[in-house]
Amino acid sequence: MNRSELFDAIKRKKSFLCVGLDPVIDRMPDYLEGDVLGFNKSIIDATRDYCVAYKPNTAFYEALGLDGLTILKETIDYIGDDHLVIADAKRGDIGNTSRQYARAAFEIWGADAITIAPYMGSDSVQPFLDFPGKWVILLALTSNVGSQDFQLMRDQNSQQPLYETVMRKAAEWGSPDQLMYVCGATHPEYFAELRKIVPDHFFLVPGIGAQGGDLQAVCRHGMNDHCGLLVNSSRGIIYASDGEDFAEAAGVAAKVLQVKMEGALATFLP
Amino acid sequence: MNRSELFDAIKRKKSFLCVGLDPVIDRMPDYLEGDVLGFNKSIIDATRDYCVAYKPNTAFYEALGLDGLTILKETIDYIGDDHLVIADAKRGDIGNTSRQYARAAFEIWGADAITIAPYMGSDSVQPFLDFPGKWVILLALTSNVGSQDFQLMRDQNSQQPLYETVMRKAAEWGSPDQLMYVCGATHPEYFAELRKIVPDHFFLVPGIGAQGGDLQAVCRHGMNDHCGLLVNSSRGIIYASDGEDFAEAAGVAAKVLQVKMEGALATFLP
Repeated sequence: MNRSELFDAIKRKKSFLCVGLDPVIDRMPDYLEGDVLGFNKSIIDATRDYCVAYKPNTAFYEALGLDGLTILKETIDYIGDDHLVIADAKRGDIGNTSRQYARAAFEIWGADAITIAPYMGSDSVQPFLDFPGKWVILLALTSNVGSQDFQLMRDQNSQQPLYETVMRKAAEWGSPDQLMYVCGATHPEYFAELRKIVPDHFFLVPGIGAQGGDLQAVCRHGMNDHCGLLVNSSRGIIYASDGEDFAEAAGVAAKVLQVKMEGALATFLP
Repeated sequence: MNRSELFDAIKRKKSFLCVGLDPVIDRMPDYLEGDVLGFNKSIIDATRDYCVAYKPNTAFYEALGLDGLTILKETIDYIGDDHLVIADAKRGDIGNTSRQYARAAFEIWGADAITIAPYMGSDSVQPFLDFPGKWVILLALTSNVGSQDFQLMRDQNSQQPLYETVMRKAAEWGSPDQLMYVCGATHPEYFAELRKIVPDHFFLVPGIGAQGGDLQAVCRHGMNDHCGLLVNSSRGIIYASDGEDFAEAAGVAAKVLQVKMEGALATFLP
């Protein structure tokens, strides 16, 4: 799914919601007896109309055991081609190794996009960008408390914080048609600045819901003429209920966000 | 394997070699017909006496397909308890997600240690440190060209480069008994400074061999009273030959490094 197809989907569905598929067996309804694929399929069926993207986080599949990646692939297959599928993997290694990660994510699991950690620099990111039609989503300013440990450190020459240096450098590596950035909703005060740094790239925005971010503030400062935002909710949707109505509750939670996003698009889309 | 057990193994074997197990089917001898586990077992049998650690990089197992993690686990099982097993995974995510990665690496795959990327800060690292008896190996100054993109950026207040800030902060999170750092051998000129920052922690040192690093310089400036170095070689050992003698050639390549390390220990161990 390329950038204009993504924008078309956003306009058609009046939503820029990404649903995070992070299954933990202990939090699933007991009657499912640990059937993660069944859980995911029910969540996908219930939320499909309200979102444009799904984001399975690989950690939750690796923790399921040695067949976790099979469940990941079957989940991605079930999602199909109408949604952007983001493997939230936060990978990154030297060039010949990153190429192996890219093959796994894009060719084996079948994801459209993968999240990447920038610490190792250009040659750790480039192999992912070399896959035509696929997306790299680079960590910039993350939503967690630890984002303040290193990402806000200012360079003595440019005075730029690290996340800004990351965004500026990476914009030289990947165009808005192949590169997005992770920018956490827990930092809404930064979004006007973030948007000045890279006006055209999409942002993947975690941190609304369980982490407390502010959707309206993110949209006010972060939306561009292609929307430019994919706002993720994981736990707020997939664990909206731990009863037999979990899928219905997930659908309602996704619909509530879609309605808010419809309003935000009407208000803030240029 | 705790720090004094690791030092005991280094003294007993007169080696601080870590063998990187990064199998690529195209580079394995044809007659193995893609039998990665068989390849790994032959390499392990041939090198076991000359090294104290093995480092399978998860990328190469993920790229093998959906059963790649089974091959990873079977490889780790085959190594046994006499060597430190490092899952070179470069993971890192928000707290509840890092906990899943830690469970996968330590409880499912059975690794003793995992490499972690620091970009997301304290709460992305802590869940790995919470596993008693296990090791976190944090990226500090990596061996690749891209290490210069962000890791050398100097903070406007402390004047410290990012890798130093990472090392200092992380030393508050994890003691030398549970935390190591990745410091690339392609930067031997930095090792005296690195050792001043964290005198007691072990360094995992990639970048000799295919990447061109200088073992002697690393030892001269980096060795401490527990050795404090695990020097990795991957391609230089496992692809020493692509013929039927691949295992024998790997053993010879490992032995050559062990002899160099024996000399370095005699010269530089305080």
